[in-house]
Amino acid sequence: MIRPIPGGVTAPAGFRAAGVSCGIKRRTADAVAPLDLALVAADGPAAAAAVFTTNKAVAAPVVVSREHLAASGGRVAVIAANSGCANACTGQDGMAVARGMAAAAAEALGCAGEHALVASTGVIGVPLDLDKLRRGIVAARQALRRDAHDDAAAAIMTTDPFPKSYAVAVDTPAGTYTVGGMAKGSGMIEPRLATMLAFLTTDAAIEPAVLDQALRHVVDRTFNAITVDGEPSTNDAVFALASGASGVAVDRADDPVFVEALAAVARHLAREIVRGGEGATKLVTVQITGAASDADARLAARAIANSPLVKTAVHGGDPNWGRLVSAAGRSGAGFSLDRASVSIGDVALFVRGVPHDDRAPDAAGVLAAQEVTVSVDLGTGGGHAATMWTCDLSAEYVRINAEYRT
Amino acid sequence: MIRPIPGGVTAPAGFRAAGVSCGIKRRTADAVAPLDLALVAADGPAAAAAVFTTNKAVAAPVVVSREHLAASGGRVAVIAANSGCANACTGQDGMAVARGMAAAAAEALGCAGEHALVASTGVIGVPLDLDKLRRGIVAARQALRRDAHDDAAAAIMTTDPFPKSYAVAVDTPAGTYTVGGMAKGSGMIEPRLATMLAFLTTDAAIEPAVLDQALRHVVDRTFNAITVDGEPSTNDAVFALASGASGVAVDRADDPVFVEALAAVARHLAREIVRGGEGATKLVTVQITGAASDADARLAARAIANSPLVKTAVHGGDPNWGRLVSAAGRSGAGFSLDRASVSIGDVALFVRGVPHDDRAPDAAGVLAAQEVTVSVDLGTGGGHAATMWTCDLSAEYVRINAEYRT
Repeated sequence: MIRPIPGGVTAPAGFRAAGVSCGIKRRTADAVAPLDLALVAADGPAAAAAVFTTNKAVAAPVVVSREHLAASGGRVAVIAANSGCANACTGQDGMAVARGMAAAAAEALGCAGEHALVASTGVIGVPLDLDKLRRGIVAARQALRRDAHDDAAAAIMTTDPFPKSYAVAVDTPAGTYTVGGMAKGSGMIEPRLATMLAFLTTDAAIEPAVLDQALRHVVDRTFNAITVDGEPSTNDAVFALASGASGVAVDRADDPVFVEALAAVARHLAREIVRGGEGATKLVTVQITGAASDADARLAARAIANSPLVKTAVHGGDPNWGRLVSAAGRSGAGFSLDRASVSIGDVALFVRGVPHDDRAPDAAGVLAAQEVTVSVDLGTGGGHAATMWTCDLSAEYVRINAEYRT
Repeated sequence: MIRPIPGGVTAPAGFRAAGVSCGIKRRTADAVAPLDLALVAADGPAAAAAVFTTNKAVAAPVVVSREHLAASGGRVAVIAANSGCANACTGQDGMAVARGMAAAAAEALGCAGEHALVASTGVIGVPLDLDKLRRGIVAARQALRRDAHDDAAAAIMTTDPFPKSYAVAVDTPAGTYTVGGMAKGSGMIEPRLATMLAFLTTDAAIEPAVLDQALRHVVDRTFNAITVDGEPSTNDAVFALASGASGVAVDRADDPVFVEALAAVARHLAREIVRGGEGATKLVTVQITGAASDADARLAARAIANSPLVKTAVHGGDPNWGRLVSAAGRSGAGFSLDRASVSIGDVALFVRGVPHDDRAPDAAGVLAAQEVTVSVDLGTGGGHAATMWTCDLSAEYVRINAEYRT
């Protein structure tokens, strides 16, 4: 019913994309001009929803996109996104640049100003060059194609080790529709970059309010359930656009098939972001059970997923279950040591308060794999659970983020 | 009025200490048996107070010490502390060992059972050998001396790079009294160690309830204001004992001189713990101003002090002020980007919402020092402030904590 298909953000009908170079990113050593400006365009104003960073140091493009989404009642014809400069902490000048960027995109596509959104990722605190953006947007307008999704995915990368695109087809009794998307993570070889951006598209016919509700539900369980280093950025944004071109209508935000299709694309992209985290060598799934509430389950999952001691232990292949117990215990979630349990893969190392450290060698074997699941039952007897994805913490992470930028 | 003096936990009159080897820590490569058992003994039951970990995965010695402190009404004659094994996540067997350890200390000192407290630090989830402890406690009883504070400070180390002792004399119109102490941090070359232990002593005459109140006030501003990696352990504990041997009475918990003397010792030891953090090369003071409340000021300070992006930037000498803004913005504290300011040392890089990135080279010069202060005004116009101490995050931290334990 939901099956992966080739392509990405342009897989759904009614969307075109482009990725061009406009000179914001520095040229590489061999003088190649890297792609740094992407457009995602709908054939007409698409239903739109977005979820933005909770960071109060919010970047100018987030402010502008939020305003335009409200002014248009959730209708978007184009999103312009650049990499290489975040346009964050740039004061009133930065706000003017973000507005100019949106205006240039609206002019290029011939749509109303509020039908254009913007996103930026890159260095914080340095000015974004509006002239370069304007020239880039005109060039990208000429380059818009159905098969340019790879260029678009590349143009939003900062130092992500690989581009991230995904798409699924959804077969329903009423017909087939498609959900696609692209994302970038927080690779940061160039210091001061730290943004997650994701663009989801579908050709299902769905009203903005319904799309918004479904998006929030899905983001909570996918993009909000990943962490590389626990640092939500100033620019994080997830956009969803629905063209309706498939003719298949989705009327309810809790339509189980649509939610699962949107989640499948979001989950894939989210996990790819973690897999491509700075210095990451392992993808870790953190599973919490036995929590007294959903909030508690997430608290514990987040504490474990962000624990430097857990992340370094995984990196070193050390089945150090005491660190998992300690992180759960300090998370603030309800926790009963006498009834708590911990497993690494299928190896139970702590069972209802009793240690089984003799099984550590088996757990070390589990940790040798590139994908690992760690499970903690909080021992409260509650039926609530949560899942998060994280990566290990390596010396390479430190090297990447400590490197002086000049 | 408050002046540093030589010595440590035995500097105040009425206290003796010892540090011996009882075989819990493994012998070093050259077959030396490292010190791993400390006693701190009062000549008679001293007034006592303690602050323990907030981690819900609380270790057996913490449970026992908390019980004995309650049963004795805050009177303690001896504290036995071992390193090399945390006796945490060890189930009912571990509880029996902790009770046996306290009973052995009480028997050795000839005091009532509830007048003995215990503390352990080291590996989580493996059994602590009570027979070794009993033999060690007998040996340590014989070794108790006024000048053995260095042995005691060494015996509580796990892989701290240096022992931590400090003492001050306090001259008052009523006479002179002394405050001393020792602490250990969370060096973790042997994986699964992570405990902060501190032992404070004074020969001021002070009632347990008053001491308790003063200790909580001081710990909040010293030991609770440091972080190495944001991981409160299962065993964290700060003990305070008052012998009264100086004859100088302290009647009020808000006695400004006593509070400052206790804080001076606690602050020194706390900063030494950070300076000796795993892989640390720099001591960073985080100063928050312009917060809407004390709680907000601490939230922002903690977010910055635990931010891996801030800590790696400091490590690399990168004056990456955008990471400070971003960490403050995501901390949950009230924050106004348009009026926020950031300085590194004396160099103002972001002033009331306006970036001054051209000053980055000056800030890079500031970051070259071993001690660095970073200051963030949250821009709310509120008059609340907070200070925290942290260290940088180095590749050495990862190496230490990723190394497989066998």
